[in-house]
Amino acid sequence: MGIACASLDAAIERYEGVFGLTVASRETNSEQGVREAMMVVSGEPAASYVQLLEPLGPDTPVGKFLARRGEGIHHVGYAVRDVTAALEAIGGRGVRLVDSRPRHGSMGASIAFLHPGDLGGVLTELVQH
Amino acid sequence: MGIACASLDAAIERYEGVFGLTVASRETNSEQGVREAMMVVSGEPAASYVQLLEPLGPDTPVGKFLARRGEGIHHVGYAVRDVTAALEAIGGRGVRLVDSRPRHGSMGASIAFLHPGDLGGVLTELVQH
Repeated sequence: MGIACASLDAAIERYEGVFGLTVASRETNSEQGVREAMMVVSGEPAASYVQLLEPLGPDTPVGKFLARRGEGIHHVGYAVRDVTAALEAIGGRGVRLVDSRPRHGSMGASIAFLHPGDLGGVLTELVQH
Repeated sequence: MGIACASLDAAIERYEGVFGLTVASRETNSEQGVREAMMVVSGEPAASYVQLLEPLGPDTPVGKFLARRGEGIHHVGYAVRDVTAALEAIGGRGVRLVDSRPRHGSMGASIAFLHPGDLGGVLTELVQH
Protein backbone atom coordinates (compact mmCIF):
# COMPACT_ATOMS: atom_id res chain seq x y z
CA MET A 1 0.00 0.00 0.00
CA GLY A 2 1.39 3.39 -1.01
CA ILE A 3 0.68 6.37 1.21
CA ALA A 4 1.23 9.98 0.15
CA CYS A 5 2.77 12.12 2.88
CA ALA A 6 3.99 15.69 3.16
CA SER A 7 7.05 14.72 5.21
CA LEU A 8 8.73 11.36 4.81
CA ASP A 9 10.60 11.70 8.08
CA ALA A 10 7.44 12.49 10.04
CA ALA A 11 5.60 9.59 8.38
CA ILE A 12 8.41 7.13 9.15
CA GLU A 13 8.42 8.28 12.76
CA ARG A 14 4.66 7.75 12.95
CA TYR A 15 4.72 4.22 11.55
CA GLU A 16 7.66 3.28 13.76
CA GLY A 17 6.22 4.88 16.88
CA VAL A 18 2.55 3.95 16.58
CA PHE A 19 2.69 0.56 14.89
CA GLY A 20 6.25 -0.60 15.49
CA LEU A 21 7.02 -1.07 11.79
CA THR A 22 10.63 -0.95 10.63
CA VAL A 23 12.26 0.60 7.58
CA ALA A 24 13.33 -1.96 4.97
CA SER A 25 14.70 0.60 2.51
CA ARG A 26 14.87 4.31 1.75
CA GLU A 27 15.24 5.47 -1.82
CA THR A 28 14.79 8.42 -4.11
CA ASN A 29 13.08 7.56 -7.40
CA SER A 30 13.47 10.53 -9.75
CA GLU A 31 11.50 8.82 -12.50
CA GLN A 32 8.48 8.58 -10.17
CA GLY A 33 9.24 11.90 -8.51
CA VAL A 34 9.36 10.62 -4.94
CA ARG A 35 11.49 10.13 -1.88
CA GLU A 36 10.20 6.99 -0.25
CA ALA A 37 10.53 4.40 2.46
CA MET A 38 9.33 0.81 2.56
CA MET A 39 8.06 -0.18 6.01
CA VAL A 40 7.75 -3.91 6.69
CA VAL A 41 4.44 -5.12 8.08
CA SER A 42 5.54 -7.98 10.29
CA GLY A 43 3.73 -11.16 11.18
CA GLU A 44 3.38 -12.55 7.69
CA PRO A 45 5.60 -15.08 5.96
CA ALA A 46 5.07 -13.25 2.68
CA ALA A 47 5.98 -9.70 3.59
CA SER A 48 3.63 -6.83 2.98
CA TYR A 49 4.86 -3.26 2.93
CA VAL A 50 3.61 0.19 3.71
CA GLN A 51 5.30 2.45 1.16
CA LEU A 52 5.58 6.06 2.33
CA LEU A 53 5.85 8.56 -0.53
CA GLU A 54 6.99 12.17 -0.29
CA PRO A 55 6.87 14.10 -3.57
CA LEU A 56 10.05 15.64 -4.96
CA GLY A 57 7.97 18.61 -6.11
CA PRO A 58 4.41 19.85 -6.72
CA ASP A 59 4.37 18.78 -10.38
CA THR A 60 4.92 15.10 -9.66
CA PRO A 61 2.02 12.61 -9.52
CA VAL A 62 2.22 12.36 -5.71
CA GLY A 63 2.62 16.15 -5.41
CA LYS A 64 -0.58 16.66 -7.39
CA PHE A 65 -2.36 14.02 -5.30
CA LEU A 66 -1.37 15.83 -2.09
CA ALA A 67 -2.55 19.19 -3.43
CA ARG A 68 -5.89 17.72 -4.51
CA ARG A 69 -6.75 15.34 -1.66
CA GLY A 70 -4.21 15.80 1.12
CA GLU A 71 -2.26 13.06 2.80
CA GLY A 72 -3.67 9.54 2.56
CA ILE A 73 -3.68 6.22 0.74
CA HIS A 74 -2.38 6.73 -2.80
CA HIS A 75 -2.39 3.26 -4.35
CA VAL A 76 -2.27 -0.47 -3.73
CA GLY A 77 0.32 -2.85 -5.17
CA TYR A 78 -0.02 -6.58 -5.69
CA ALA A 79 2.94 -8.93 -6.00
CA VAL A 80 2.98 -10.88 -9.24
CA ARG A 81 5.44 -13.47 -10.54
CA ASP A 82 5.81 -11.93 -14.01
CA VAL A 83 4.79 -8.31 -14.43
CA THR A 84 5.05 -8.36 -18.23
CA ALA A 85 2.74 -11.36 -18.50
CA ALA A 86 0.34 -9.87 -15.94
CA LEU A 87 0.20 -6.56 -17.85
CA GLU A 88 -0.60 -8.38 -21.06
CA ALA A 89 -3.32 -10.50 -19.44
CA ILE A 90 -4.97 -7.59 -17.63
CA GLY A 91 -4.76 -5.30 -20.65
CA GLY A 92 -6.48 -8.06 -22.61
CA ARG A 93 -9.37 -7.88 -20.13
CA GLY A 94 -10.06 -4.29 -21.12
CA VAL A 95 -8.23 -2.43 -18.36
CA ARG A 96 -6.23 0.59 -19.53
CA LEU A 97 -2.57 0.50 -18.58
CA VAL A 98 -0.75 3.55 -17.21
CA ASP A 99 2.52 1.77 -18.00
CA SER A 100 2.54 -0.40 -21.08
CA ARG A 101 5.92 -1.77 -20.04
CA PRO A 102 7.51 -2.25 -16.60
CA ARG A 103 9.44 0.50 -14.86
CA HIS A 104 11.83 0.58 -11.93
CA GLY A 105 10.22 0.35 -8.49
CA SER A 106 11.38 0.09 -4.90
CA MET A 107 13.98 -2.40 -3.78
CA GLY A 108 14.86 -3.40 -7.32
CA ALA A 109 11.33 -4.44 -8.28
CA SER A 110 9.81 -4.16 -11.75
CA ILE A 111 6.50 -2.35 -11.51
CA ALA A 112 3.63 -1.13 -13.65
CA PHE A 113 0.49 0.86 -12.88
CA LEU A 114 -3.06 0.17 -14.08
CA HIS A 115 -5.57 2.93 -14.73
CA PRO A 116 -7.87 3.70 -11.77
CA GLY A 117 -10.66 4.72 -14.17
CA ASP A 118 -11.19 1.07 -15.08
CA LEU A 119 -10.73 -0.21 -11.52
CA GLY A 120 -13.33 1.58 -9.44
CA GLY A 121 -11.12 4.55 -8.65
CA VAL A 122 -8.28 2.43 -7.27
CA LEU A 123 -4.80 3.18 -8.63
CA THR A 124 -3.35 -0.33 -8.80
CA GLU A 125 0.27 -1.38 -9.17
CA LEU A 126 1.73 -4.73 -10.19
CA VAL A 127 5.04 -5.54 -8.50
CA GLN A 128 7.52 -8.20 -9.55
CA HIS A 129 10.18 -8.59 -6.85
CA MET B 1 -7.89 -2.99 2.30
CA GLY B 2 -11.43 -1.62 2.19
CA ILE B 3 -12.71 -0.18 -1.08
CA ALA B 4 -15.83 1.96 -1.38
CA CYS B 5 -17.93 1.08 -4.41
CA ALA B 6 -21.26 2.21 -5.79
CA SER B 7 -22.31 -1.32 -6.80
CA LEU B 8 -21.11 -4.34 -4.87
CA ASP B 9 -22.09 -6.72 -7.66
CA ALA B 10 -20.16 -4.74 -10.28
CA ALA B 11 -17.12 -4.51 -8.00
CA ILE B 12 -17.13 -8.26 -7.29
CA GLU B 13 -17.37 -8.96 -11.01
CA ARG B 14 -14.41 -6.64 -11.62
CA TYR B 15 -12.14 -8.25 -9.01
CA GLU B 16 -13.11 -11.73 -10.17
CA GLY B 17 -12.74 -10.93 -13.84
CA VAL B 18 -9.63 -8.75 -13.86
CA PHE B 19 -7.60 -10.21 -11.01
CA GLY B 20 -9.09 -13.68 -10.51
CA LEU B 21 -9.88 -13.09 -6.84
CA THR B 22 -12.62 -15.16 -5.22
CA VAL B 23 -15.36 -14.26 -2.75
CA ALA B 24 -14.70 -15.54 0.78
CA SER B 25 -17.87 -14.09 2.29
CA ARG B 26 -20.76 -11.73 1.60
CA GLU B 27 -22.44 -9.97 4.49
CA THR B 28 -24.63 -7.03 5.39
CA ASN B 29 -23.42 -5.08 8.42
CA SER B 30 -26.20 -2.73 9.51
CA GLU B 31 -24.10 -1.28 12.32
CA GLN B 32 -21.49 -0.14 9.78
CA GLY B 33 -24.11 0.65 7.13
CA VAL B 34 -22.65 -1.55 4.39
CA ARG B 35 -23.24 -4.52 2.16
CA GLU B 36 -19.85 -6.07 1.63
CA ALA B 37 -17.78 -8.86 0.18
CA MET B 38 -14.38 -10.15 1.26
CA MET B 39 -12.21 -11.14 -1.73
CA VAL B 40 -9.23 -13.37 -1.01
CA VAL B 41 -5.87 -12.24 -2.35
CA SER B 42 -4.19 -15.53 -3.09
CA GLY B 43 -0.53 -16.44 -3.02
CA GLU B 44 0.09 -15.73 0.64
CA PRO B 45 0.07 -18.17 3.53
CA ALA B 46 -1.43 -15.45 5.73
CA ALA B 47 -4.42 -14.35 3.72
CA SER B 48 -4.97 -10.73 2.78
CA TYR B 49 -8.37 -9.50 1.70
CA VAL B 50 -9.84 -6.86 -0.53
CA GLN B 51 -13.04 -5.78 1.22
CA LEU B 52 -15.59 -4.29 -1.14
CA LEU B 53 -18.05 -1.93 0.55
CA GLU B 54 -21.36 -0.70 -0.83
CA PRO B 55 -23.21 1.78 1.41
CA LEU B 56 -26.71 0.93 2.63
CA GLY B 57 -27.59 4.60 2.22
CA PRO B 58 -26.18 8.10 1.68
CA ASP B 59 -26.02 8.89 5.42
CA THR B 60 -23.63 6.05 6.24
CA PRO B 61 -19.86 6.59 6.55
CA VAL B 62 -19.18 4.88 3.22
CA GLY B 63 -22.11 6.70 1.60
CA LYS B 64 -20.63 10.04 2.65
CA PHE B 65 -17.18 8.97 1.44
CA LEU B 66 -18.61 8.11 -2.00
CA ALA B 67 -20.43 11.43 -2.24
CA ARG B 68 -17.28 13.36 -1.26
CA ARG B 69 -14.53 11.50 -3.11
CA GLY B 70 -16.11 8.92 -5.39
CA GLU B 71 -15.20 5.26 -5.55
CA GLY B 72 -11.77 4.29 -4.24
CA ILE B 73 -9.71 3.01 -1.35
CA HIS B 74 -11.54 3.73 1.90
CA HIS B 75 -9.33 2.28 4.64
CA VAL B 76 -6.64 -0.24 5.50
CA GLY B 77 -6.95 -2.96 8.14
CA TYR B 78 -4.13 -4.72 9.96
CA ALA B 79 -4.53 -8.11 11.61
CA VAL B 80 -3.70 -8.06 15.33
CA ARG B 81 -3.74 -10.85 17.91
CA ASP B 82 -5.68 -8.90 20.55
CA VAL B 83 -7.65 -5.88 19.39
CA THR B 84 -8.44 -4.65 22.91
CA ALA B 85 -4.77 -4.69 23.90
CA ALA B 86 -3.77 -3.05 20.61
CA LEU B 87 -6.36 -0.27 21.07
CA GLU B 88 -5.05 0.43 24.54
CA ALA B 89 -1.42 0.51 23.41
CA ILE B 90 -2.08 2.72 20.37
CA GLY B 91 -4.38 5.05 22.31
CA GLY B 92 -1.57 5.41 24.84
CA ARG B 93 0.69 6.63 22.02
CA GLY B 94 -1.58 9.63 21.46
CA VAL B 95 -3.67 8.37 18.54
CA ARG B 96 -7.38 9.17 18.81
CA LEU B 97 -9.64 6.13 18.60
CA VAL B 98 -12.81 6.13 16.52
CA ASP B 99 -13.90 3.04 18.45
CA SER B 100 -12.90 2.91 22.09
CA ARG B 101 -14.02 -0.70 22.22
CA PRO B 102 -14.19 -3.41 19.53
CA ARG B 103 -17.17 -3.83 17.24
CA HIS B 104 -18.37 -6.62 14.95
CA GLY B 105 -16.53 -6.89 11.64
CA SER B 106 -16.52 -9.22 8.66
CA MET B 107 -16.30 -12.98 9.02
CA GLY B 108 -16.80 -12.85 12.78
CA ALA B 109 -13.82 -10.59 13.44
CA SER B 110 -13.58 -8.01 16.23
CA ILE B 111 -12.57 -4.68 14.76
CA ALA B 112 -11.87 -1.10 15.77
CA PHE B 113 -11.02 2.02 13.80
CA LEU B 114 -8.31 4.60 14.55
CA HIS B 115 -8.69 8.27 13.67
CA PRO B 116 -7.17 9.25 10.29
CA GLY B 117 -6.42 12.74 11.61
CA ASP B 118 -3.61 11.31 13.73
CA LEU B 119 -2.41 8.89 11.06
CA GLY B 120 -1.55 11.01 8.04
CA GLY B 121 -5.03 10.89 6.57
CA VAL B 122 -5.23 7.09 6.60
CA LEU B 123 -8.35 5.56 8.14
CA THR B 124 -6.86 2.53 9.87
CA GLU B 125 -8.64 -0.54 11.21
CA LEU B 126 -7.40 -3.18 13.64
CA VAL B 127 -8.79 -6.66 12.98
CA GLN B 128 -8.75 -9.60 15.37
CA HIS B 129 -9.84 -12.73 13.52
